[in-house]
Amino acid sequence: MKQVQLSHGGGGEETNKLIHDLFYRHFKNDILIKAEDAAVLQTQGKIAFTTDSFTVSPLFFEGGDIGKLAVAGTVNDLSMMGAKPLYLSSAFMIEEGFAFEELERIVESMAKELEKSGAKIVCGDTKVVPRGSVDKLFINTAGIGAVMREGISSQAIKEGDVIIASRDIGRHGATVLMAREGLEVSADLGSDCETLWPAVEALLAENISVSALRDATRGGLAAVLNEWAENSDVCLEIEEAAIKVSDEVQGICEMFGFEATDLANEGTFVAAVAPMHAAFAVSALQRFGFCRDAAVIGRATTQYPGKVVLHSAFGSRRFLDLPKGELLPRIC
Amino acid sequence: MKQVQLSHGGGGEETNKLIHDLFYRHFKNDILIKAEDAAVLQTQGKIAFTTDSFTVSPLFFEGGDIGKLAVAGTVNDLSMMGAKPLYLSSAFMIEEGFAFEELERIVESMAKELEKSGAKIVCGDTKVVPRGSVDKLFINTAGIGAVMREGISSQAIKEGDVIIASRDIGRHGATVLMAREGLEVSADLGSDCETLWPAVEALLAENISVSALRDATRGGLAAVLNEWAENSDVCLEIEEAAIKVSDEVQGICEMFGFEATDLANEGTFVAAVAPMHAAFAVSALQRFGFCRDAAVIGRATTQYPGKVVLHSAFGSRRFLDLPKGELLPRIC
Repeated sequence: MKQVQLSHGGGGEETNKLIHDLFYRHFKNDILIKAEDAAVLQTQGKIAFTTDSFTVSPLFFEGGDIGKLAVAGTVNDLSMMGAKPLYLSSAFMIEEGFAFEELERIVESMAKELEKSGAKIVCGDTKVVPRGSVDKLFINTAGIGAVMREGISSQAIKEGDVIIASRDIGRHGATVLMAREGLEVSADLGSDCETLWPAVEALLAENISVSALRDATRGGLAAVLNEWAENSDVCLEIEEAAIKVSDEVQGICEMFGFEATDLANEGTFVAAVAPMHAAFAVSALQRFGFCRDAAVIGRATTQYPGKVVLHSAFGSRRFLDLPKGELLPRIC
Repeated sequence: MKQVQLSHGGGGEETNKLIHDLFYRHFKNDILIKAEDAAVLQTQGKIAFTTDSFTVSPLFFEGGDIGKLAVAGTVNDLSMMGAKPLYLSSAFMIEEGFAFEELERIVESMAKELEKSGAKIVCGDTKVVPRGSVDKLFINTAGIGAVMREGISSQAIKEGDVIIASRDIGRHGATVLMAREGLEVSADLGSDCETLWPAVEALLAENISVSALRDATRGGLAAVLNEWAENSDVCLEIEEAAIKVSDEVQGICEMFGFEATDLANEGTFVAAVAPMHAAFAVSALQRFGFCRDAAVIGRATTQYPGKVVLHSAFGSRRFLDLPKGELLPRIC
């Protein structure tokens, strides 16, 4: 089995060959193959810029792999700022001896995911480190997008804004947890990992008044809602029964003592929109398969500024806090 | 001793605290502290975009550390495209248990290096992975710069262009090698790690006709010259005696069987300039301490297109090839 060798990261002949035979072949575009120290790009107006490293273990899981995650994650961070994803960098940190075949599967998966937003990988870096210096493979992607709508911000949520969740929560966290424990689960459980730009593009195209967008990755829905409540100094009142959780995820939460609201998602986002646009926003989202369960889950009020309040179906209420402690390492 | 815990990477309360107390404190700027999914930036004209991961071992070495390297490396990649470094991302991949004090030293070192170019860190990411999943710390930086001079390219070297090296070569590679072997060396040996933008800015300000610029990192001077010869389809004829190598580096090369031309540099670059500007370029460079040994080392000809020819002081000549094999892993 062909393996990645230290010489593939040395900057000499073998590095050149790896870059041309693997990365250029799959990510091929005019800018990347210029192979300069930096890509030269023409942009107009305001741009969004973000970075994310991916250290997920295992590298392959139901519904995705580290490559899909590395593209979707950065594309989604741009999308959440109302920015059309244009250009990505990709940096591979590879353990000596890593199977070339797996690396190629991951690169193919990245190329496929890029098609969903039209973004291009225009620059990259490859490091190979000796056995034991990294566990198999880490990937960093940074991204540049064109801001299509200004002012979308975690600080822009106003009293009365309606909170919409794009789908059921906790799938990515639950899936990676089960894969890591080597446990078999129902075929219905897979990561939600997905490029969200098409759904965001639809919201913007429909002129929906969007105050904030955020994908509920590490820290889950609880982290997003708490950051929003704090940054916008509003109270977010959430109907617990309106938050969708699949039976599989619920079962795993009960088994391991997790809250679904703390579990990571990789293709699930929350939107705060003006109340008069809420129904319109939900139906715009539901046109996309990965958002077909989009629903209103709550509303911004002045009740307890900076806090998230969960209302149970039975009429009781409690604060939903920011997740604490270790949660799940290497989830993304 | 305070250590980085898995919870610092969980996306919850502890992550927030680490980001605010460490990264925002040292990298403080208006854009970063907005803490959105992506930074929103205003740029004009063409931009350059690049990425680099840093996996150097040991993390601290004579003349620098992984933080200085992570800033200078990406700033230099932008500079080599004639772009003024403006915005950087920084992504930390940290091993559980890493000393907080060392992390802070590294972050301080990054902040200090940023001052030399005026670039700002505007977005970031922090991952903490369990013990054994990464060796201490990797950093990825991506960067955006404003292209100040278009057309600088490894494909733009013309017959007659003069090749200038900005200083003596091989210091970074030799320094990291000695640090890793735990060997004592002369106090005169330290990495050349340095932000090169001020020197490039001077070349552009003086209206020097620059065909290509490239920092001689992994693969050393030999890799740059070979890529240039191939990409521009010229022969680069180099006077071996004109390439400066310090006694310390020369001694280490002899001891370990390396060629100084293959060793990595982190603050040494090569410029191809129009012949009538060569002397002017050298004196513009020599105004900077880290370029005081700048010198003409050769010339582009049509002798053997795609090849690099080394002329010895004794009149013999040989091809200088692209480095092959493992070289030194984790050099940057």
